[in-house]
Amino acid sequence: MTDTNEEERLGGKRTFGHGNDFSNSEVNRALRNHGSYYEGIAQDITPATMHYLLCHFDVPQTDPHTFRLEISGHVKNKLSLTLDDIKSRPAETHAVTLECAGNGRQSFAQRPKSQPWNEWAVGTAEWLGTPLAPLLEEAGLEDAVHSLVFTGEDRGIEVDEPIYYQRSLTRQDAMNAQALLVYGMNGEPLPAAFGFPLRLIVPRWYGMASVKWLSRIEATDSEFDGYYMKQAYRNKQSENDPGKDIRLQRVRSVIAPPGIKYRHQGDRLVQPGSVEIQGKAWSGAGAITNVEISPDGGQSWQDARLGEALGEFAWTPWTYNWQARPGAFEILSRATDGLGNTQPFEADWNYLGMENNSIQRVSVVVAEIP
Amino acid sequence: MTDTNEEERLGGKRTFGHGNDFSNSEVNRALRNHGSYYEGIAQDITPATMHYLLCHFDVPQTDPHTFRLEISGHVKNKLSLTLDDIKSRPAETHAVTLECAGNGRQSFAQRPKSQPWNEWAVGTAEWLGTPLAPLLEEAGLEDAVHSLVFTGEDRGIEVDEPIYYQRSLTRQDAMNAQALLVYGMNGEPLPAAFGFPLRLIVPRWYGMASVKWLSRIEATDSEFDGYYMKQAYRNKQSENDPGKDIRLQRVRSVIAPPGIKYRHQGDRLVQPGSVEIQGKAWSGAGAITNVEISPDGGQSWQDARLGEALGEFAWTPWTYNWQARPGAFEILSRATDGLGNTQPFEADWNYLGMENNSIQRVSVVVAEIP
Repeated sequence: MTDTNEEERLGGKRTFGHGNDFSNSEVNRALRNHGSYYEGIAQDITPATMHYLLCHFDVPQTDPHTFRLEISGHVKNKLSLTLDDIKSRPAETHAVTLECAGNGRQSFAQRPKSQPWNEWAVGTAEWLGTPLAPLLEEAGLEDAVHSLVFTGEDRGIEVDEPIYYQRSLTRQDAMNAQALLVYGMNGEPLPAAFGFPLRLIVPRWYGMASVKWLSRIEATDSEFDGYYMKQAYRNKQSENDPGKDIRLQRVRSVIAPPGIKYRHQGDRLVQPGSVEIQGKAWSGAGAITNVEISPDGGQSWQDARLGEALGEFAWTPWTYNWQARPGAFEILSRATDGLGNTQPFEADWNYLGMENNSIQRVSVVVAEIP
Repeated sequence: MTDTNEEERLGGKRTFGHGNDFSNSEVNRALRNHGSYYEGIAQDITPATMHYLLCHFDVPQTDPHTFRLEISGHVKNKLSLTLDDIKSRPAETHAVTLECAGNGRQSFAQRPKSQPWNEWAVGTAEWLGTPLAPLLEEAGLEDAVHSLVFTGEDRGIEVDEPIYYQRSLTRQDAMNAQALLVYGMNGEPLPAAFGFPLRLIVPRWYGMASVKWLSRIEATDSEFDGYYMKQAYRNKQSENDPGKDIRLQRVRSVIAPPGIKYRHQGDRLVQPGSVEIQGKAWSGAGAITNVEISPDGGQSWQDARLGEALGEFAWTPWTYNWQARPGAFEILSRATDGLGNTQPFEADWNYLGMENNSIQRVSVVVAEIP
């Protein structure tokens, strides 16, 4: 009936699917935790109604009038801030590209039964908020502080007991990641499903770091070992492998499908002639320095023309002029960032299906459109 | 890669799935054509970012400044209206419950491979627009007029050739169904994915009648036999059965899941004691006169308390006070309308998986929440 968002388990063990073998539970997750519309990816800024959405639990009902953000733990000055307090602080608006850490899970050959993302769990909105770091300075982190734990109001059963959605950042990341406490999206108040009244946005990181319905920040003197830090959102090789933290978005690009929807012989039908293919590229590790396009399934590559990034935290638009001749084609895009990271044809498999930045393939038929 | 929305075909024949056997293509449809959030169903009015969405093709880009609604065909006065022309006409706002004709498809034992809806393809928004009928009067329908054909700007390949999304209403339905030409949703301009700048809303009908991105209305002197009238959106028993038109929403109710998300032994975990269960009920055929709740899997039934309908075109909220004792339960709701139509335990199967108004079942575990 309702969906669940994390891994399916049978007798305590995770279950896996292969190729065209999806479960009812995966379908119900997809019907709720939906991807961005590629039409919204073709635009520079993704409208809220076209932006991907993942909620681990129910969307909590929060009263903005009684709302408080509590900053506590190992701090010199505990803070309890109203929404107005937060809105009266210096405000910034940034275009930020968010991507789910499980984006692309579906294309792993062996797929953990979890949110079955294709390639559209990415979007870029304009987020309005106030920087986190000065607020932490005001609270005065004690020397002993190791991490900041961010708690959302969303709550449900994970494994055995009810938990809130919680993620932590180390002290250094919390001070340096340019994170924002956000109360606006694309010129409107934050919609309920996107975290109303307040959420964290951690630019360049995968989306799991950007805690929604944020109500508490606790400074701790040790590492935080919550479920979403140490069990979910790991890049690991087996159930018992502790694995690695998931942090910055890997370099990736998407192609806004050209032409029109075509059901039977390929994904899209394109009129012969000059076709401007467009897309976006991003990397948490730095600026995009190159996007290459292959219109022939990966045999040959040409450079796309890069536009300007939508800001220091957001994707780079690209275009590619394709002389489309009749036939069937597979179009690929491959992005490279300033650190020299490039998208692989096939990303390394991992047990939870995370961080898949494999090259996207769009199949296209070029023919006269009647 | 991209999704498709209608039925999958293999060698020209529709393909079917059973139970937990979903295809990649169905999952990709679900990731795009998403359901409403049940949190938005618990509210009287569903926020746009929580409202279900089905787009047959790509969302078209429409320039509101050059936009025209053309009314042509067998009319005495052809009209070509700007958006301002339409906005300057008498405006009305109505809460309207929209439901996809394929809502519930997933629960048919044999399921055509199409949009794999669970029960959440329903929502109620406040739609702002101007009534259709006076505009048709102004255009002056000729005596010969049989139908009005409504064309959206959305276009793609369906079967063999590119088509626009088109639906018709008979002259009588167009004049009497209280349809609106809509340019606002929930106090905001219509979002792009919901039909910007203009759409039709046909209250009480399944959603396929409410053509989005509406740009043309043509008065025809014969019945319209377009794909979405005569092939898709039919209630039929086999591929070659011409079947019946799909029109008004069947009587139906949904339960806003009580408690919190619970993964392993049921859908929801509920604290023992007095629990207010709430939900919504609606019928295209008339007012809701009764909602019964069974907290024991359908063995016994008690009446829910009905609230006021959100308007003549919208759902009726209901509540039910449940004394929850520890254990595992299946909660059902069953609505009845003024014509005496009642939800069945299992709706009659049909070839395209349409109009499934079977009783919903929510599995609940009642136990102390730690």
